[in-house]
Amino acid sequence: MTIDQLYGQIQQKKSFLCVGLDVDLTKIPQHLLNTEDPIFEFNKAIIDATHDLAVAYKPNTAFFEAYGLKGWQSLVKTINYINEKHPEIFTIADAKRGDIGNTSTMYAKAFLEEMNFDSITIAPYMGKDSVEPFLAFEDKFAILLALTSNEGAFDFQTKTNGKEELYKTVLSTSQTWKDSERLMYVVGATKAEYFTEIRKLVPDSFILVPGVGAQGGSLREVCKYGMNDRVGLLINSSRAIIYASKSEDFADKAREEALKVQQEMETILGSK
Amino acid sequence: MTIDQLYGQIQQKKSFLCVGLDVDLTKIPQHLLNTEDPIFEFNKAIIDATHDLAVAYKPNTAFFEAYGLKGWQSLVKTINYINEKHPEIFTIADAKRGDIGNTSTMYAKAFLEEMNFDSITIAPYMGKDSVEPFLAFEDKFAILLALTSNEGAFDFQTKTNGKEELYKTVLSTSQTWKDSERLMYVVGATKAEYFTEIRKLVPDSFILVPGVGAQGGSLREVCKYGMNDRVGLLINSSRAIIYASKSEDFADKAREEALKVQQEMETILGSK
Repeated sequence: MTIDQLYGQIQQKKSFLCVGLDVDLTKIPQHLLNTEDPIFEFNKAIIDATHDLAVAYKPNTAFFEAYGLKGWQSLVKTINYINEKHPEIFTIADAKRGDIGNTSTMYAKAFLEEMNFDSITIAPYMGKDSVEPFLAFEDKFAILLALTSNEGAFDFQTKTNGKEELYKTVLSTSQTWKDSERLMYVVGATKAEYFTEIRKLVPDSFILVPGVGAQGGSLREVCKYGMNDRVGLLINSSRAIIYASKSEDFADKAREEALKVQQEMETILGSK
Repeated sequence: MTIDQLYGQIQQKKSFLCVGLDVDLTKIPQHLLNTEDPIFEFNKAIIDATHDLAVAYKPNTAFFEAYGLKGWQSLVKTINYINEKHPEIFTIADAKRGDIGNTSTMYAKAFLEEMNFDSITIAPYMGKDSVEPFLAFEDKFAILLALTSNEGAFDFQTKTNGKEELYKTVLSTSQTWKDSERLMYVVGATKAEYFTEIRKLVPDSFILVPGVGAQGGSLREVCKYGMNDRVGLLINSSRAIIYASKSEDFADKAREEALKVQQEMETILGSK
């Protein structure tokens, strides 16, 4: 997918919502457990109910790997379903990978070619040659962790070298890498005021924002400081949408929650 | 596995060699491609040929994920084979995972419980609450990236905050976390002189050392600066051993290469 196509979808749907597919078998409606592939059935129902309100889906690979071979199969079925039924939707493998060059190339092929995701999240710790292999694919994106929404973000990411915090070094350094126009970034919503500084470093990049909803953080605040002239934000919500109900009406309730977010986004886009 | 058991194995085998199982179908002997599961058949032959010379095996998950469902199946078969046939051997899932708390818990369960690896490599960028879930399992270990052996290590890991480099902050900060006695660290062999400083920060921890062999770096240098009174080192070699030959004699040649390393280790241990 190109940035133009992603922006076109945002304009058409009046939404920049990303739905996180973090499926935990202990949290889904119990009647699904009798089906052959409960994880896929759950995802399919959520996707069918929300695909006109969301511009992106983000399966977190941990929640699939936790179920071994069967879980991996559910992941493949989920991405195939999105790509076949809703090819306009931007897909994110939330995998947080990153390794030395030849190994990163293997991961990149697995997710961007074999499974055909549009993008994958990447951890920056190992530097340039661990990230560039993910940037070698046309119309695909690597979404680099910059400032995450968890408490541990303050352990290393916000440590300063006297001049700037580590996450700012990650942002500015990564912009010098080959094919850096294929980089997006993860910045948590819990620190909305940081977006002003961040936009100075990466004015044009899309930013994936977790932490609205279950992890706290205000949508309006993030948009106020983080939006650029092509929106430039994908706001992720996982648990608040997919676990809105544990009953047979779970997909309808998920749609209701997604609709609330989409309507707030439409208002924000309208007032821009 | 306990540290005592690992150290006992090192003493018995006079070796602290870890063999990296990074299986690339384009690099293995072509006759294996006619078998039902070439990756597993390759690993099985390497393990059978080297298990008395190595104390640890380290499958890199990227090389399995790259082959999709079949690759994941080969990984499960490989770890099951080691655990059944050679339960004394320390197993490392080289996965470089790390995510927010509940997600890290899913990864930890997948690798340390479901697949029953003894340990998993972890990226530190997301801090304490992304790592601690991996430390919650008795007799299991999380191996935290500190100073890696690739060029990109100099992008962020060696950046100083005026007081110390980031990788030193990672070492000392992580030692304050809950169950930090279950932490080990990755330190690349390409920077042997750094081990003196590193041992001041983590005197008792085991250190997994990549970069001897294909990535350069001297075994004797690393041992000189990095060894502690229970050895405290696992030296990884992947390509130099497993791809010693591309012919039908590949397992014999792998054993020859592993034996060379083991003999050098025996000499080093004897002169200690």
